[in-house]
Amino acid sequence: MECAKSLRELAEFTGAAMRGANAAEVIITKVGPLDTADGSTLSFLSNKRYRKQLETTQAGAVVLSSHISYDRPCLTSKNPYLDFVKILSLYAPSIPLPEPGIHPMAFVHPKAKLAKDAAIGPFCVVQAGAEIGKGSVLVAQVYVGENTTVGEHCQFHPGVVIRESISIGNRVILNPGVVLGGDGFGFAPDGGKYQKIPQIGTVVIEDDVEIGANTTVDRAALGETRVGQGTKLDNLIMVAHNVRIGSNTVVAGQTGFSGSTKVGNNVMMGGQIGTAGHIEIGDRVIVGGQSGITKDVAPGQFISGYPAKSHKEDMRLLAEFHRLPELRKKIEQLETRLKELEKE
Amino acid sequence: MECAKSLRELAEFTGAAMRGANAAEVIITKVGPLDTADGSTLSFLSNKRYRKQLETTQAGAVVLSSHISYDRPCLTSKNPYLDFVKILSLYAPSIPLPEPGIHPMAFVHPKAKLAKDAAIGPFCVVQAGAEIGKGSVLVAQVYVGENTTVGEHCQFHPGVVIRESISIGNRVILNPGVVLGGDGFGFAPDGGKYQKIPQIGTVVIEDDVEIGANTTVDRAALGETRVGQGTKLDNLIMVAHNVRIGSNTVVAGQTGFSGSTKVGNNVMMGGQIGTAGHIEIGDRVIVGGQSGITKDVAPGQFISGYPAKSHKEDMRLLAEFHRLPELRKKIEQLETRLKELEKE
Amino acid sequence: MECAKSLRELAEFTGAAMRGANAAEVIITKVGPLDTADGSTLSFLSNKRYRKQLETTQAGAVVLSSHISYDRPCLTSKNPYLDFVKILSLYAPSIPLPEPGIHPMAFVHPKAKLAKDAAIGPFCVVQAGAEIGKGSVLVAQVYVGENTTVGEHCQFHPGVVIRESISIGNRVILNPGVVLGGDGFGFAPDGGKYQKIPQIGTVVIEDDVEIGANTTVDRAALGETRVGQGTKLDNLIMVAHNVRIGSNTVVAGQTGFSGSTKVGNNVMMGGQIGTAGHIEIGDRVIVGGQSGITKDVAPGQFISGYPAKSHKEDMRLLAEFHRLPELRKKIEQLETRLKELEKE
Repeated sequence: MECAKSLRELAEFTGAAMRGANAAEVIITKVGPLDTADGSTLSFLSNKRYRKQLETTQAGAVVLSSHISYDRPCLTSKNPYLDFVKILSLYAPSIPLPEPGIHPMAFVHPKAKLAKDAAIGPFCVVQAGAEIGKGSVLVAQVYVGENTTVGEHCQFHPGVVIRESISIGNRVILNPGVVLGGDGFGFAPDGGKYQKIPQIGTVVIEDDVEIGANTTVDRAALGETRVGQGTKLDNLIMVAHNVRIGSNTVVAGQTGFSGSTKVGNNVMMGGQIGTAGHIEIGDRVIVGGQSGITKDVAPGQFISGYPAKSHKEDMRLLAEFHRLPELRKKIEQLETRLKELEKE
Repeated sequence: MECAKSLRELAEFTGAAMRGANAAEVIITKVGPLDTADGSTLSFLSNKRYRKQLETTQAGAVVLSSHISYDRPCLTSKNPYLDFVKILSLYAPSIPLPEPGIHPMAFVHPKAKLAKDAAIGPFCVVQAGAEIGKGSVLVAQVYVGENTTVGEHCQFHPGVVIRESISIGNRVILNPGVVLGGDGFGFAPDGGKYQKIPQIGTVVIEDDVEIGANTTVDRAALGETRVGQGTKLDNLIMVAHNVRIGSNTVVAGQTGFSGSTKVGNNVMMGGQIGTAGHIEIGDRVIVGGQSGITKDVAPGQFISGYPAKSHKEDMRLLAEFHRLPELRKKIEQLETRLKELEKE
Repeated sequence: MECAKSLRELAEFTGAAMRGANAAEVIITKVGPLDTADGSTLSFLSNKRYRKQLETTQAGAVVLSSHISYDRPCLTSKNPYLDFVKILSLYAPSIPLPEPGIHPMAFVHPKAKLAKDAAIGPFCVVQAGAEIGKGSVLVAQVYVGENTTVGEHCQFHPGVVIRESISIGNRVILNPGVVLGGDGFGFAPDGGKYQKIPQIGTVVIEDDVEIGANTTVDRAALGETRVGQGTKLDNLIMVAHNVRIGSNTVVAGQTGFSGSTKVGNNVMMGGQIGTAGHIEIGDRVIVGGQSGITKDVAPGQFISGYPAKSHKEDMRLLAEFHRLPELRKKIEQLETRLKELEKE
């Protein structure tokens, strides 16, 4: 974090507007949350829940939305979040990564092909026929199986396992414990027992994908399981065999995709969602957390609940559910009144 | 996939019937999905959702159910799935596995007992007193703790951890990241704090079990946690201490079993199911995905929902739930009509 | 388990009362479950479901609640669970752990600082600037990143990954596959794509925390993610960035915490619970399994369901839900009766 810039420089860097007395001269040496900030800290109002912190923050400057009134030094724009992220990248410490080359305690098979500046840390395994592109880094204790190809500038953290014959694009980030290419869950019933169905397909991870810790993506039975360009998967997600996820889709933690399901582009999914197998979720769909998706979803829908339905309908039904005791009371009153009428 | 056989040969191999013009002479060199097949590919109609693909597929031949009409070369039988799996096994590339022997970069304790043809890949650890049976393979970066015994012809993928004093049968397949024998979750309340209850039991994995990536099976507090013969567990499943799962049971991803619960034989469970602790789920029970099982389930039931109930009852209640707004309207109409009667 | 003590000795050790004929002379050499116990086994009645086993058990003695009638040798007290745990600790075999020192097949960076009696097992990595306190044990294949500090008497099982700049207290137990400090899930939308938000915060794990197999705790975006003193997390839990969990809180398996959520002290949470982000769950809250917590929860509440509400209210609504078909019938009857009245 050896970075010191004036707020004026940061305004120019991002294109954001600058406000507040003597704003231009504020020197920013670090970024941090509103509540622990000091006079050389740049903070960010990320959520309206924290708006009260604006009144008491000691931050040297704050990045916020143009419409928020704040008379101390700040940067404002239409997309303050993105501006803050750009500045954050200036101040972020670089992640410590192994130097290019093969650590003496790594095992790289003589028939593996490594770009000259790839970095292979201690206790990594790169098997025969595997290819690692330039600038890619296997931090430590990573496994890359036979004939798996890894693109350029990838970052694989400790404990990542990529089995044989998998394809990984460029700039892919795999957090610790990610497993790619485990056997899909396929068994044919055979008189009370099960026969294993060989899972002979592959996994394709496209460019700019990031995958969270301990998430698993199974290899296809036949063909491929695919995660599209720019898609981001959180931790502990399960992607079953033959699932295809589109581009620039984001999925929160512990969600599970059943076999052969297809997810579109620019989809946003909450955590702990489950999907049925063999269904299709269209582009730009938004799904609330803990939903259960049982059938195809048309593009652009906002769905939630179990079984998942339009969020509006889901909310309406939930409201009705909460009024059930009231409904029962109403019915009892009707009954009483009806009885009286019948008496007459 | 260096295999080329005529459809006639495959019919004889499986016992399936053969149909279609010149079917016998079709030469099959590979297997693959309907939509990407060519004239030397054998495909399979796995799901009626894909039936339309039969019209356009370029597959040399297709395996399907006897009752489906299809006039090009095909193999038909009562259990086409199983026939296809048998053929697939012929064409499946063998998984690349380390050669028998101990990799120079593995650590095998002098007091471990290895069968002569066991294979221990790079960065594996086999501790004192551990036994690895003949033909068993630890691909790489696998941990086998003290006094753990592993049977014959097992396959443990990278990142598998098996702690001390665990028993593993024969032909067990553990996908990457599986953890067996982690401490069960047991703590005794002690005045606002918790005392750890030593988890001194074991885990027993019987023959022919397969476990998916990053699934965890905890060691028992006392006694054992057991997964029965031929049972298949998918990814990211949690099996708590002292759970006993029977034989030939299949469980989909992200399901969790609370402590001491007993699951019968030939049970089929969907994904993301949770069970209470100390309950008993009978043989041949079928459970829908995302269910919450709160009490004992008699053998042969098909249950779903939260709390899990007969699937029929669950569907009925869900239907009622969806008709709640209509119910409310009905009540309002009744009220209006009643008011009018009361006026009269 | 080389331990043989008379029941009298165990009574004195725990302070429990002793009952039953010749109880004082019973020699206990092991502890175990009621159903497989023999005459030298001490058992425990842990759950009233197993009370029938008291009639048939062969146990030499049993630990149980004072109010339970049992005329054979037993120890009774107000907190028999805790007494049993104390005795169990006497008989529990010590977990096999590596000797102090650095295994020749480990990689410890020259700039790492290790206490003299720390134990670093095979294929562990301890990076530059990392500190490992006295008596702490990294069993095998553990990763400790740059500048991460680990306190005293910690126990990290195989496959644990702790990334850079994380703080771990004393006596922390991490089961296999635990990941601390993976990148939080933060991405800023940028015209249909996503820009990664550098996750430059840390994770703090306080003293006496235990974390279950394959659980993940993400590093903060800014600031810290924190797990408080004495808190116990089960397997496959996800703790997102900037979450703060208090002291002596217990959380069952597969539960997920969304970003920035705050959980109090002495909270008890079941399994497969999900929480929204940026909410606050008060001290001593109890949450039923599979709940979805969507908003702040006041201290001391017992909540359940989706969305989580007071457990009493949840049970009431569930009961109403189950009576929906009956409600519909009632309405139909009212309608019929009303029609008749209208005819008149």
